[in-house]
Amino acid sequence: MSRSNSKDQELRDRAAVVIPGGMYGHQSVGLVPDGYPQFFSKAEGARLWDADGQVYIDYMCAYGPNLLGYTHPGVNAAYVRQLEIGDTMTGPAGVMVDLAEQFVSMVSHADWAMFCKNGTDATSMAMVIARAHTGRKTIILAKGAYHGSAPWCTPRPAGITPQDRANQIYCDYNDIASLEAAVAQAGDDLAAVFAAPFKHDAFVDQALPDPAYARRARELCDQTGALLVVDDVRAGFRIARDCSWSVVGVKPDLSTWGKCIANGHPISALLGADKARAAASKIYVTGSYWYQAAPMAAAVETLRILRDSDYLERLVSLGNRLRNGLAERAGAAGFSMRQTGPVQMPLFLFDEDPDLRKGFAWSSAMLERGIYVHPWHNMFLCAAMTEADIDQTLAAAEGAFKHLAGVAPTLGPVEKLAAFFH
Amino acid sequence: MSRSNSKDQELRDRAAVVIPGGMYGHQSVGLVPDGYPQFFSKAEGARLWDADGQVYIDYMCAYGPNLLGYTHPGVNAAYVRQLEIGDTMTGPAGVMVDLAEQFVSMVSHADWAMFCKNGTDATSMAMVIARAHTGRKTIILAKGAYHGSAPWCTPRPAGITPQDRANQIYCDYNDIASLEAAVAQAGDDLAAVFAAPFKHDAFVDQALPDPAYARRARELCDQTGALLVVDDVRAGFRIARDCSWSVVGVKPDLSTWGKCIANGHPISALLGADKARAAASKIYVTGSYWYQAAPMAAAVETLRILRDSDYLERLVSLGNRLRNGLAERAGAAGFSMRQTGPVQMPLFLFDEDPDLRKGFAWSSAMLERGIYVHPWHNMFLCAAMTEADIDQTLAAAEGAFKHLAGVAPTLGPVEKLAAFFH
Repeated sequence: MSRSNSKDQELRDRAAVVIPGGMYGHQSVGLVPDGYPQFFSKAEGARLWDADGQVYIDYMCAYGPNLLGYTHPGVNAAYVRQLEIGDTMTGPAGVMVDLAEQFVSMVSHADWAMFCKNGTDATSMAMVIARAHTGRKTIILAKGAYHGSAPWCTPRPAGITPQDRANQIYCDYNDIASLEAAVAQAGDDLAAVFAAPFKHDAFVDQALPDPAYARRARELCDQTGALLVVDDVRAGFRIARDCSWSVVGVKPDLSTWGKCIANGHPISALLGADKARAAASKIYVTGSYWYQAAPMAAAVETLRILRDSDYLERLVSLGNRLRNGLAERAGAAGFSMRQTGPVQMPLFLFDEDPDLRKGFAWSSAMLERGIYVHPWHNMFLCAAMTEADIDQTLAAAEGAFKHLAGVAPTLGPVEKLAAFFH
Repeated sequence: MSRSNSKDQELRDRAAVVIPGGMYGHQSVGLVPDGYPQFFSKAEGARLWDADGQVYIDYMCAYGPNLLGYTHPGVNAAYVRQLEIGDTMTGPAGVMVDLAEQFVSMVSHADWAMFCKNGTDATSMAMVIARAHTGRKTIILAKGAYHGSAPWCTPRPAGITPQDRANQIYCDYNDIASLEAAVAQAGDDLAAVFAAPFKHDAFVDQALPDPAYARRARELCDQTGALLVVDDVRAGFRIARDCSWSVVGVKPDLSTWGKCIANGHPISALLGADKARAAASKIYVTGSYWYQAAPMAAAVETLRILRDSDYLERLVSLGNRLRNGLAERAGAAGFSMRQTGPVQMPLFLFDEDPDLRKGFAWSSAMLERGIYVHPWHNMFLCAAMTEADIDQTLAAAEGAFKHLAGVAPTLGPVEKLAAFFH
């Protein structure tokens, strides 16, 4: 097996001239194994082609947006149909109301919806609405949780001021005592408690939500008058056909959505309960493309498919097949891998691999075998995957584990992760 | 003449249930005259159809994005072609590099480009990069200038904390002494000076940039090491085929773009000089849809048309025809109207109309006659407009001025503007 990368390299060379660092944000290849492609030429169903034409079963799904399969004919047809009628106009089209009605009908805590473009737009709006609702400033966040890349929440400190992070208190996810201490510290200034639907931080094991933690967050918000915000941008609709905390029986006041709600077309959303409606109508938020009709038409079609198909049950079934098959093959090759989080959003971390050298080598070996996995970020299954795709993945994994067994004793530290582990 | 609004009203009634305030942001009809439609059903070229099927020549152009004409066949074909190959994927397509190269080749101050979704994304990135570049915090903004709707810049105070507005100093646009005083006040902490390409604030006369002011801003940034940022989101490519301050001979370090750069498809951009490249590569900014290939393909085609056509000269010619024709007809009806800003981005304010009652009545009369104008926000011409469209507009204006002459003595204050003028 030998992959070519001449077209990818040519694009990287050109990008290095006209894009800072050659690429930026979560799709930079700066922290994935050498040899991972930076540029892609085609996507269809569960598969992705790199710039040099090599095909992969893609377990990143565009970092989430691909839920029903890339280039989905029905969703794309809905987009194009609306595009030909009118998209970005001087006001919204009626489909905005259709979408708000359908979204609210699916998400049990929600009475209203606002649409925007980035997940960060939705989380920022949630923060501002909570402050407008309560007249207070402090928000509680879990350490290490990602809520976007605006100055108040971006994970990298360059260019960020202390004032950007004022009025924030951090707690530990799933740790009730830590949450209670944060609430106590906020005193009479608590505006909101933010929560990821489960712990899906990078580089560490994922964790499902402890129902007692979720219930306590709800109680503390009720007692203080603060708003409870579930940030479902990443996990939304991969856990439930409702807000992801519906599975633990807790209703937030606000929930944030994005990524897959139009199967990759550009739209995100903030959903809220009546309690927060007045505050939501007082804030000023907007964007040039927020009223685009075509992504709304695509979202309406996506939501229809989610309601009418067994996509979610299939994701769980495929995810279990993958998890069980990988555990078996890892064990047979003498490895132990921690597979954490929901099976439909898995993360793989090797035991006895503190600096990820095994994870990097195994992921690279998977890539060589036509499977795109990520060594430290949660992955995503999509409904276009089949049992045959999972079995192809498991066959590749068997080869990758064997390869790893051969090279493991000689692996050195991963140079590009030096900043994280040294 | 009598317009129907039953379908618009039905949509408004439904929206009131599932969208806070029935609508939000700049496309809310909360502050335009009663009777303006909220929802639209179709857009093509220079024309827009409301939900009840009535057609208007649209001088808002979606608040800017419509530069070449709504539903532009060439630009939309480029979008759909890329959409069918791959759009939101696990990494960017090569078209991202093509677009960065072409954008940089057109904008004379720029050596690199980053793409995002909202204008606010671009202005926020400019602020963070300036702080990362200088290691300082203070930014200077002009009073009343709009740079987006994030907590640091949104024009409405609900939900905003004092810390969100920390490290900001305000000056008066085009006032050199005021700018110098702001720079002095910033002391050794100046990170950036933000400037609109011309003064295009709502509710007040627009003003072209004083070249001496622009040059002084450049000098002060050079002396202090701060970055000069021109926010071209609204005006970009309607003033020049380059940054809008190229017409006054001043090159910023960073410029922000959006709205029309893909003729309404969702993409915005930050362009920068080499000086700021290292800082730009240090910050962490991203979004789920920022690497979408289809809007980039649409932008490549839009930029090609801008380079290869006389769109800009036509906008100016049509704008002059409109301005001269309106002045003549206003005068003939006994009115005096201030038409400010570049002719291709006009604003009309009546003399002796401090609370806009005349402006509202005249705009409503224009709408009744099939012309969509805005009573207090700058408007936009698009390249799909023809001389016949301008002449149709002028004929409508003649009728609207006559109507205004009849009703002017009986006009009362505009109730929905009470918060602004009382």
